[in-house]
Amino acid sequence: MTDSGDSISRRSLLAGAAAAAGSAITARVLRADGAEAAAQAGPDPTKVPGDRPQVLGSRSPHETPEKLISSSIGGVTRTPLQDLYGTITPADLHFERHHHGIPRIEPEAYRLLIHGMVDRPMVFTLDELRRFPSVTRTYFLECSGNGGAGYSETPRADVSPQQLDGLLSGSEWTGVPVKTLFAEVGAHADASWFLAEGSDAAVMARSVPVEKAWDDALIAYAQNGEAIRPEQGYPARLLLPGWEGNANVKWVRRLELSDRPFMTRDETSRYSDPLKDGTARIFSFEMDAKSLITYPAHPVRLEGPGWVGITGYAWTGRGRIARVELSLDGGATWASASLQEPVLPKALTRFSFGWRWDGEPAHLMSRAVDETGYVQPTVAEMQAARGPRSRYHYNTIRGWKVGADGTIGFATV
Amino acid sequence: MTDSGDSISRRSLLAGAAAAAGSAITARVLRADGAEAAAQAGPDPTKVPGDRPQVLGSRSPHETPEKLISSSIGGVTRTPLQDLYGTITPADLHFERHHHGIPRIEPEAYRLLIHGMVDRPMVFTLDELRRFPSVTRTYFLECSGNGGAGYSETPRADVSPQQLDGLLSGSEWTGVPVKTLFAEVGAHADASWFLAEGSDAAVMARSVPVEKAWDDALIAYAQNGEAIRPEQGYPARLLLPGWEGNANVKWVRRLELSDRPFMTRDETSRYSDPLKDGTARIFSFEMDAKSLITYPAHPVRLEGPGWVGITGYAWTGRGRIARVELSLDGGATWASASLQEPVLPKALTRFSFGWRWDGEPAHLMSRAVDETGYVQPTVAEMQAARGPRSRYHYNTIRGWKVGADGTIGFATV
Repeated sequence: MTDSGDSISRRSLLAGAAAAAGSAITARVLRADGAEAAAQAGPDPTKVPGDRPQVLGSRSPHETPEKLISSSIGGVTRTPLQDLYGTITPADLHFERHHHGIPRIEPEAYRLLIHGMVDRPMVFTLDELRRFPSVTRTYFLECSGNGGAGYSETPRADVSPQQLDGLLSGSEWTGVPVKTLFAEVGAHADASWFLAEGSDAAVMARSVPVEKAWDDALIAYAQNGEAIRPEQGYPARLLLPGWEGNANVKWVRRLELSDRPFMTRDETSRYSDPLKDGTARIFSFEMDAKSLITYPAHPVRLEGPGWVGITGYAWTGRGRIARVELSLDGGATWASASLQEPVLPKALTRFSFGWRWDGEPAHLMSRAVDETGYVQPTVAEMQAARGPRSRYHYNTIRGWKVGADGTIGFATV
Repeated sequence: MTDSGDSISRRSLLAGAAAAAGSAITARVLRADGAEAAAQAGPDPTKVPGDRPQVLGSRSPHETPEKLISSSIGGVTRTPLQDLYGTITPADLHFERHHHGIPRIEPEAYRLLIHGMVDRPMVFTLDELRRFPSVTRTYFLECSGNGGAGYSETPRADVSPQQLDGLLSGSEWTGVPVKTLFAEVGAHADASWFLAEGSDAAVMARSVPVEKAWDDALIAYAQNGEAIRPEQGYPARLLLPGWEGNANVKWVRRLELSDRPFMTRDETSRYSDPLKDGTARIFSFEMDAKSLITYPAHPVRLEGPGWVGITGYAWTGRGRIARVELSLDGGATWASASLQEPVLPKALTRFSFGWRWDGEPAHLMSRAVDETGYVQPTVAEMQAARGPRSRYHYNTIRGWKVGADGTIGFATV
């Protein structure tokens, strides 16, 4: 998205018929606001031979989206949400959260062991996994710690969508259903949990209720049409649609079925949510409905009054987004945004809303409602339920305060 | 996809409980076929720190898909269809067909002129285009000359899906509807055609019926979540969903409304279809229903009898694919393949079919049927209608002959 101008009708009117068919576009034009300008289209690209194609395409040198790397040894990169369009995150811009870096795995050496409460413990090669009937689905992934800067009534104002909520991405995933593999090994009917263990240097591991396997869990080996990239779990990862990112174990090497959770380091030392009363909730897998305006947002500055195309993402781990509501006055009144069709379950949903800014201070907010009726809460509501020190699942209503000078700062109330 | 083995049940059975929880996967296993093997997972990646993340992700060094470049000066690259999964083509693997190379266009210098039979001729900057309400849709693009090698009853056998039909890709596109722009300029009610002119060195131009603008045509500026890449028309291209690739004018700089077609060089010297009687059909925009098996296909060689996961793409310019039929015996009998949901209109649809190969010679064919009832024709049917010298819109039924030795060759009858 781009900076907003004075009006959506501020297009250039051509003065006369000076632009004859086929000529370069250099006619003098009359702007709708009365100012004359020469619509000089720069050097004429029709006068020089173009570049030859390559075996791999590349971005324009004028387009340089990048992930933001955090200095943590564990490894965190954030997706430039404000630079994106539509609903797909380009694979090289997908966020990352590693617990001990990105392992190098030879596809021929890859093995997935499935054992525990099964009739036939088995080891699958990558070729074997790929030979099963596959499914392709579009899902979001979000780190359970995403958006902590919004869990305050007095947050820093100078954060961008990428800094605030960049641990969020959306992809088309292809893989084999875990239920297919569990049927192959003869999973026992009384198995209620399974362990998913990664082959990174942290041996990241999580316990997962077996119901998720019988529902929609995948062993995914492809993303956005190609093999998964190393930082996303090459050659194969667990995918638990709608559930917190860390449980979608990358570089997965082992699934062990059991009748109880495994209480791994990764689900006790972290990824439990401290509560108000000093206890913590554990196994809080589902990501609640959330939304974020990605334009206009800090550090964009609106140039002046006129039409602004508000847009952003909404998502929920519980199915489909039912609606996204927009407020221009800090939550006093709300109106419905348009949702980009098709609205897919557990996938990023693009919303948009045409706003005619009058140049006065405004306070933009978005609020997602999912098909279960769940409504994205305010900070006050969530703090009342979880207390001030909650560390995960930050899905409170976000906002952007627009000043009379067009500057924009992050705000929650 | 990978080479097929002897059986889908050829997974490895773990001998005993030697793989204790948390240990590296080096247990001896008993394969289902009786052969013992040590499931050695190679160097253990859990024993060394992983790589640090970068601002842009990258492919595994073991995954090296590439476009195939034709030597033509005009520029042709073909998508490696056999290497892809799901329905999205990664942006850097999208096919190309240029008429005089890839122009370099500065986004600030870009202008789109809309004039002719309009009330208000106007020039739009890229920022202005982006400020209009946008839509995001998933569509295929196919060059109208794609697949000529299949227009014969005695084709070369040694062609791959990429060589045969690689001028085909699928993307999520974002842009502004042309109808929005036509309303803005006040298109005259009696305008029946518009010219779309590119700013490449060939000044590629096509006449388009105005009905397409009022239907679903877009000025697209984003693809698969990011700005369109230079070889796809950066910063903006015309998108005519379901219509032949060349009419989707890249680097579009001018739309001129008229009450007749413009009869440009690009629609008379080429992109007309020679017919049997010596005449030619012109303005044959819609791409007819077509399908292609991408696995198994030349040069893959099946290793031996067993389960083979047949898969490929189907698509139609007329809406949704209704079904894809598979034949294993050269067209004598047919069965329905599974279609990956959601089946989107004018988009690539992934189909799959589980085939248990008995080791005897086989002749695989796929046949697409779209929601209008149109059935992908045989070569004989199409040659009867068009004659032997047709040059475009090659959508005849394709097949792959599998020999008893597992080798695979392209065949049409």
